[in-house]
Amino acid sequence: MKHPTFAQPIEAYLEEFNRTLPQRVRSQVPLLNLVVRYLLRSRGKQLRPMLVFASAGACGAITDRTHIGAAMVELLHTATLVHDDVVDQAPMRRGLASINAIWKNKVAVLVGDYLLAQGLLLAVEHEEFDFLRVTAQAVRRMSEGELLQVQRSQKRKFDEETYLRIIRDKTAALLAACCQIGALSAGADHSTQEQLAVFGERIGLAFQIRDDVLDYTSRSTILGKPAAHDLREGKATLPLLRALEQAPPSEAQAIVRLLQSSARRNGHIQRIIAFVERYGGVESAMATARTLVEDAIAELDSLPPTEFRDMLIAIARYTIERTK
Amino acid sequence: MKHPTFAQPIEAYLEEFNRTLPQRVRSQVPLLNLVVRYLLRSRGKQLRPMLVFASAGACGAITDRTHIGAAMVELLHTATLVHDDVVDQAPMRRGLASINAIWKNKVAVLVGDYLLAQGLLLAVEHEEFDFLRVTAQAVRRMSEGELLQVQRSQKRKFDEETYLRIIRDKTAALLAACCQIGALSAGADHSTQEQLAVFGERIGLAFQIRDDVLDYTSRSTILGKPAAHDLREGKATLPLLRALEQAPPSEAQAIVRLLQSSARRNGHIQRIIAFVERYGGVESAMATARTLVEDAIAELDSLPPTEFRDMLIAIARYTIERTK
Repeated sequence: MKHPTFAQPIEAYLEEFNRTLPQRVRSQVPLLNLVVRYLLRSRGKQLRPMLVFASAGACGAITDRTHIGAAMVELLHTATLVHDDVVDQAPMRRGLASINAIWKNKVAVLVGDYLLAQGLLLAVEHEEFDFLRVTAQAVRRMSEGELLQVQRSQKRKFDEETYLRIIRDKTAALLAACCQIGALSAGADHSTQEQLAVFGERIGLAFQIRDDVLDYTSRSTILGKPAAHDLREGKATLPLLRALEQAPPSEAQAIVRLLQSSARRNGHIQRIIAFVERYGGVESAMATARTLVEDAIAELDSLPPTEFRDMLIAIARYTIERTK
Repeated sequence: MKHPTFAQPIEAYLEEFNRTLPQRVRSQVPLLNLVVRYLLRSRGKQLRPMLVFASAGACGAITDRTHIGAAMVELLHTATLVHDDVVDQAPMRRGLASINAIWKNKVAVLVGDYLLAQGLLLAVEHEEFDFLRVTAQAVRRMSEGELLQVQRSQKRKFDEETYLRIIRDKTAALLAACCQIGALSAGADHSTQEQLAVFGERIGLAFQIRDDVLDYTSRSTILGKPAAHDLREGKATLPLLRALEQAPPSEAQAIVRLLQSSARRNGHIQRIIAFVERYGGVESAMATARTLVEDAIAELDSLPPTEFRDMLIAIARYTIERTK
């Protein structure tokens, strides 16, 4: 497993985490173990457990409770990825075939449910009821955010307020939960927990904005998924919203009409991408993401200067500097 | 809402339950509220909340905690039904179009996740950590049972031990949880809780066996779904397993070969149904279900004779007498 260099202070913890995670999900059903082994083989960036460990370290102590919290958020995150791939009929995930592609939707839905239950049970078994409260709320908000996004695409509405609410729920809520759980596991006081949660929410918003920007700027060979994927699905993300705001009204209206027409032809997509470019949608969105990251980092001011705090700052910067 | 006559002792509680349930799931996302309203309009038998209330009554007291427990199990059960319909691509549920049929799989998967999280949050918010432990375990077992069933269908194995494990996990675990939560909410001691859990598990097994029997005996107009549906999906349930056991080996082997052939022609299905009839598969399965129900009822012997205990006994009998 290769982690970014900023992960160095928690490398030993991450190794233990990765060694013990499969044991935490072992089932008596061989098919389930097979699917879970496959899932855990193709781990992603592990941003969420990293945030748990770094937050705990920055608050003074990485404990056994930190390990429980990290495992919990990773299981819940994995559960939602598996369900997302069903929902999006995605054939690939992290360069490998998706669970639904190999084992069909039935298995994918059930494995997602299993991982969700198992993640929550981990907290129940260790009597980590604060972790439970924080994460069950995050899971609820993730489904609410996704559903709001579906509704918004259907209604073809393009306001920034709803966009921000969606990304706050679907992405930022879980990153906020990760940081708060890290703080909780270190025994931090309420106001420090709150600071970490705000830090997590802000980098979560920045992370998602960067994702939405990459959908406009990266080629499919880099990202492993087709660029302008969101646009093809009728999702109007921040770069487009900002271009609509900055363009002359007549031109913006023409684009809105294109977006509202039910046919999403390739020619339309190319025209919208060019429009976003012309009116600086990407730059405007990135400026917002940068402000969010700086505001996030400011939340850490009162923490003692440690390698863990430095790592949180590095993660915050990474959310907007990454190219995939 | 029309409930069976045996529900009379808890009718007032059920009415309050049905009045308050929509408020417990209210979201800020209009689409979600719309789907949930639709779901709650077409309620089923409400067997699970009934078991919670009757168990609490039989243990001495229906309390505010009982209401929380009943709402929790109903939300979790509804979540799994919504996911089941995605998994089975079912167009109908309880005589109405399924969520996936109206709003597509994406919305159905997300609404299921939301209800799951919301059900667990209800317990978190009321600090009912014992409820949480019991139900999160049940949810995990439900997905494990369903996955074991998928695996067994793929492998085309026909042993009774695996069949019983599947129905114990996928159906009986949640009914056991309902009865245990009822007992917990009444402040029952550990051994009484355990008795109620065993009662619930046994009627759960009987309930599923009856379901599997009805799949062989009822016409699609009664059940609202095609008879021999399980068989068409490659599921070998108890009536078939018992017929295989009782038939002469050569005849049983011929049927196993039919089951193992990948083509499931209508002629095959009819031949297998006739085989199950000829060798008394249905009667043998029902005899087992009856024994389970009597064993379940025996678990209630030490409880004081109340209308609630009578109701539990009536529910137990109902699980095998029902015709849909």
